[in-house]
Amino acid sequence: MSETEARLIAKAAELDAADELAKRRELFALDDGTVYLDGNSLGALPRHVPARMAEVIGREWGELRIRSWDESGWWTAPERIGDRIAPLVGAAPGQIVVGDSTSVNVFKAVVAAVRMAPDDRDEILVDATTFPTDGYVAESAARLTGRRLVPVAPAGLTAALGPRTAAALINHVDFRTGRLHDLPSLTAAVHEAGALAVWDLCHSAGALPVGLDAHGVDLAVGCTYKYLNGGPGSPAYLYVAERHQARFDSPLPGWNSHADPFAMAAGFSAADGALRGRVGTPDILSMLALESALDVWDGVQVASVRAKSLALTDFFLECVEAYAPAGRVTSLTPRAHAERGSQVALSCAEAPAVMAALIERGVVGDLRRPDVLRFGFTPLYVGFADTERAARVLAEVLAQVPVAAHG
Amino acid sequence: MSETEARLIAKAAELDAADELAKRRELFALDDGTVYLDGNSLGALPRHVPARMAEVIGREWGELRIRSWDESGWWTAPERIGDRIAPLVGAAPGQIVVGDSTSVNVFKAVVAAVRMAPDDRDEILVDATTFPTDGYVAESAARLTGRRLVPVAPAGLTAALGPRTAAALINHVDFRTGRLHDLPSLTAAVHEAGALAVWDLCHSAGALPVGLDAHGVDLAVGCTYKYLNGGPGSPAYLYVAERHQARFDSPLPGWNSHADPFAMAAGFSAADGALRGRVGTPDILSMLALESALDVWDGVQVASVRAKSLALTDFFLECVEAYAPAGRVTSLTPRAHAERGSQVALSCAEAPAVMAALIERGVVGDLRRPDVLRFGFTPLYVGFADTERAARVLAEVLAQVPVAAHG
Repeated sequence: MSETEARLIAKAAELDAADELAKRRELFALDDGTVYLDGNSLGALPRHVPARMAEVIGREWGELRIRSWDESGWWTAPERIGDRIAPLVGAAPGQIVVGDSTSVNVFKAVVAAVRMAPDDRDEILVDATTFPTDGYVAESAARLTGRRLVPVAPAGLTAALGPRTAAALINHVDFRTGRLHDLPSLTAAVHEAGALAVWDLCHSAGALPVGLDAHGVDLAVGCTYKYLNGGPGSPAYLYVAERHQARFDSPLPGWNSHADPFAMAAGFSAADGALRGRVGTPDILSMLALESALDVWDGVQVASVRAKSLALTDFFLECVEAYAPAGRVTSLTPRAHAERGSQVALSCAEAPAVMAALIERGVVGDLRRPDVLRFGFTPLYVGFADTERAARVLAEVLAQVPVAAHG
Repeated sequence: MSETEARLIAKAAELDAADELAKRRELFALDDGTVYLDGNSLGALPRHVPARMAEVIGREWGELRIRSWDESGWWTAPERIGDRIAPLVGAAPGQIVVGDSTSVNVFKAVVAAVRMAPDDRDEILVDATTFPTDGYVAESAARLTGRRLVPVAPAGLTAALGPRTAAALINHVDFRTGRLHDLPSLTAAVHEAGALAVWDLCHSAGALPVGLDAHGVDLAVGCTYKYLNGGPGSPAYLYVAERHQARFDSPLPGWNSHADPFAMAAGFSAADGALRGRVGTPDILSMLALESALDVWDGVQVASVRAKSLALTDFFLECVEAYAPAGRVTSLTPRAHAERGSQVALSCAEAPAVMAALIERGVVGDLRRPDVLRFGFTPLYVGFADTERAARVLAEVLAQVPVAAHG
């Protein structure tokens, strides 16, 4: 063992010993020796979820059957689970409903935002580096509402705002680079231009404070299968600030958003509140797995999660710098804490081969084509020893994977 | 026991003894003595699903985690499960994808249908007795595409078709009355008018032959938690006839419908085939429960299901007529087989109190406000003795519930 290794391993042990969240790891099924750095793609399984789902399937579906819509609280799950997510994103109760995919919620949010804006505002801004579905769906929303989609780099967003802007759709954390965008100042700039701010929280919720209410965000969407550990494809959520709810005019007015759904009336009359964001029958199994998974947050302060997340990513960058052969990887993730989410993205010409080798050795991150190695740090279950090991294995792999010929 | 009772109980026993589907009931968790006539709202739990879901949650999510998107076939589940549903609705492979709610699929289908029609066709017909979400969502589709929604009673549909019709959205079976609409002739009439036919199969798929391909249906949607037993809120499906797939222009072009989703490219380029109907990340737990539940169909002919369904509803009507006090209930469901789905709806002034008492006595149907008692007959697990008992208990309840004062 080199002196550097000894130093970093000792440092990791110290950091783990001082980590107030360290015990949370026991709540997750992570017994296979893997260093799981892909919780920003699919969160790990909380240990108690299988027993809860056995009850949901065996007892609630299997025995109570149709009665469970009332007796097991299925019908109200979308808003009840929304209220459990609310404190994690800084929202008071009654503003979030869970259901549908993130893409579908982007559609609801962007169309609803455009409908709240004056008719002469004909532009929808979208950050050009966004996760692609946001751009595709925003383009569709623009087409269907007769607006123009204007993709802009986040750094140029403020300059692009103007009297024609109806709404801006922005990712809180860039899925590729891990860059954190400044939600308070960008929201303020959007408002100053008289437009509505729609935030995509997929890569921030559960990893850092969001402060939706405090910063006056208008609408937001997010997924629940990354840092919220809701399970594969668990339903997304939609935040509609209370002040906008009465004007929230959904492009997907399914019977679940009706003021009296069981009247089954021919005419649509929207429910009050966040319920307006509901559409059809909720996917109960996926939804109740999410609800159960949220138990791991009981008693956790998001500020502690953020502090650990930054410490983990700082330490990973330190270890990579110490271990990795010179010139093979370059961090795309900002050094400045204020600009960093909870992942580290390393540009690497040999990324596909490197990630395959890492996974083979039990260090699971993911690849974003063509050349990005992405490592997500979930503070509830990733520790500092894991982090040191990941960097060390990365260096070993880099030493073995031949340098790619440059094109 | 009266002579009538003795006769009908004996007849039920004969019919059960001759029922080639009788053994299928053992595949379902139905051990509590309930007569479950609400499978047209939520299908019963197939017994093998809990073990499969324990594996999905414990092994695929818990141990393989992110690798399951490839290794456990999660990514291709929407089209794979679509191909399992296909034979049940008379569709060749490659035309159905599973995902999202029925409401969301109605939106995709109606907008896509309008976009396939010539621009000067500015009307969308929708049957006025439809399940409300179809009407609400079609109205939204009309508003967003600059078309006019024209609600018409199904009997008047053909007369309402014309050179302005872009598309017609029709329910195969009316959710309230159980009336079966004539899919072949209505589809032909819609085509003769130069428009597209969009069918909602929620109350027919799994209960009777649909024949999507044979009758040239253009687009169709359906849910999977009724006669397909997929579990509460299991994902819906979308059928896009092969001849239309290249022109299918989704209003919800999420990254899952991109030709190369993992390129994560800024511009949208639609995938080939039914995949175009995908949107965001599929809700894997709900989806794989559905996939597992579909095993109960292995070796079942839809024609046998239809024959038994008609025999069950015939027998129920016979028993109700024999047992029920005169004038208390009136069937809203057509007598003619060609016009009947797989449920019997009885109009009853005291419906709320009657259904509550029925459920208390272990006969589970449901109420459609204000005055409809709805009984669904799922041929895979409902038998003739169940049916006789349901009618007998109904008569007992009617004898005890006071006649409502007429307003």
